[in-house]
Amino acid sequence: MSFDSATAVQRADNSIWTGAIQPGWDIFDNANGGYMMAIAARAMSAAADDRLPVSVTAHFTRPGKPGPVSIATEVVRAGRTFSTVRADLSSEAGLVLAMLGSFADADRSTGDALLIDSGIPELPPPEACVLARPAVDAPLPPPLMDKVEERIHPDDAGTLLGKPSGRPQMRGWFRLPDGEPMTPFTLLMAADAFPPAVFNASLPLAWTPTLEMTTHIRTTHIDGWLRCQFTTRFVTGGYLEEDGEVWDESGRLVAQSRQMALLPR
Amino acid sequence: MSFDSATAVQRADNSIWTGAIQPGWDIFDNANGGYMMAIAARAMSAAADDRLPVSVTAHFTRPGKPGPVSIATEVVRAGRTFSTVRADLSSEAGLVLAMLGSFADADRSTGDALLIDSGIPELPPPEACVLARPAVDAPLPPPLMDKVEERIHPDDAGTLLGKPSGRPQMRGWFRLPDGEPMTPFTLLMAADAFPPAVFNASLPLAWTPTLEMTTHIRTTHIDGWLRCQFTTRFVTGGYLEEDGEVWDESGRLVAQSRQMALLPR
Repeated sequence: MSFDSATAVQRADNSIWTGAIQPGWDIFDNANGGYMMAIAARAMSAAADDRLPVSVTAHFTRPGKPGPVSIATEVVRAGRTFSTVRADLSSEAGLVLAMLGSFADADRSTGDALLIDSGIPELPPPEACVLARPAVDAPLPPPLMDKVEERIHPDDAGTLLGKPSGRPQMRGWFRLPDGEPMTPFTLLMAADAFPPAVFNASLPLAWTPTLEMTTHIRTTHIDGWLRCQFTTRFVTGGYLEEDGEVWDESGRLVAQSRQMALLPR
Repeated sequence: MSFDSATAVQRADNSIWTGAIQPGWDIFDNANGGYMMAIAARAMSAAADDRLPVSVTAHFTRPGKPGPVSIATEVVRAGRTFSTVRADLSSEAGLVLAMLGSFADADRSTGDALLIDSGIPELPPPEACVLARPAVDAPLPPPLMDKVEERIHPDDAGTLLGKPSGRPQMRGWFRLPDGEPMTPFTLLMAADAFPPAVFNASLPLAWTPTLEMTTHIRTTHIDGWLRCQFTTRFVTGGYLEEDGEVWDESGRLVAQSRQMALLPR
């Protein structure tokens, strides 16, 4: 099933949309957070006259399991340039995530780069990177790796084999299989679809649940492979952040992300 | 007027709180965004049985002017550890900002630092930095500088005098005047209270309105001066981000922030 089909929503009511968390888009049996953000964002976008996401924040309240979901949307404000939209995505078990975002018309963004004060992530060509495939007999790499094509920098891929690099960084290429074109909604998932950078830090950490994730999207046109880089700098006070940068193949920054995750106590 | 008084809210109804944007907390006649986030977050916290902010996102829809405001809150979910809360802060002119946040009990955070993969911002001692004071006959530095004590790194302070450093960075010390203690709500303002880092980049930019701001707070106990650092790395596609780190005097990371601002077209 394509990403487009797996994130599709239908209008059920004035402000209520329905969709489904599809099986196979999960990690440890929980649906990928960025995938669920994409579902909710499609409902928010539809509610905002098809404006596209520019900045979207999700707070996660319950793991998402495969099955039907409903998305209650509210256009808080429809301005000349931006629409501010809220949404709750709920499964039969209850609220899964609460979202808030700003959406704009497709041509809001410009191609101009006035300042780039940080390098594009350095990656060997995709064919020289490590293709992440779902494990046959282990929970990791997760089933999600069947839904996307991820090629991880050889220096960062040891975590897939239980050999962390020692550096809390994760770099790699991302695209959808079968040539499916990528949209701003794909970026919401791509920013959350790599193994956690902190897994490369050699810390005694189990899975860290995400409390909040914010993704900023700078363009609506995405060219070729995505070149991705994720880093965690601070594991302190019971929390950690993961910062992401997503560039497209033509060398433009297309998205930035940050998520805050919890250390189990 | 203290920060505590200037951000005070009173319950008007079950879920509605009232407060005021006080005069003097502004920049170019618009109330500081972080200050308004603090007002809304106090209402959200009160609605969540005094749990304190851990991650708060605001989308700004209209400039804030001095005068009464109301904050409509909704506790989306009250969990064992976190409460997820929404709020709209409105003035007589209409919606000013929409917020979404997670709040936790004061003792959720721990002091443990498992990983710090980035240096604490380097700053000369406060007395060797440049005290930011409101201009007598110019809009910048703004009146807000009377409400806080900000001491800016000499290398970054040239922007106050129209002499940008050429590097999109802003570092400095922050505290409240008169020994007023700082709280997580203060951090929401501190993360937005310095001159924009991009002003040091020598770009032909006027003021850039903030579309969205997210602040993560890692502790509820804040010790002494705040040591702050803000950077902008990407001015592309019609947007720029500003990333902030706020440390306290004892050398702990107390907050991280990111805002997305618009380039006027």
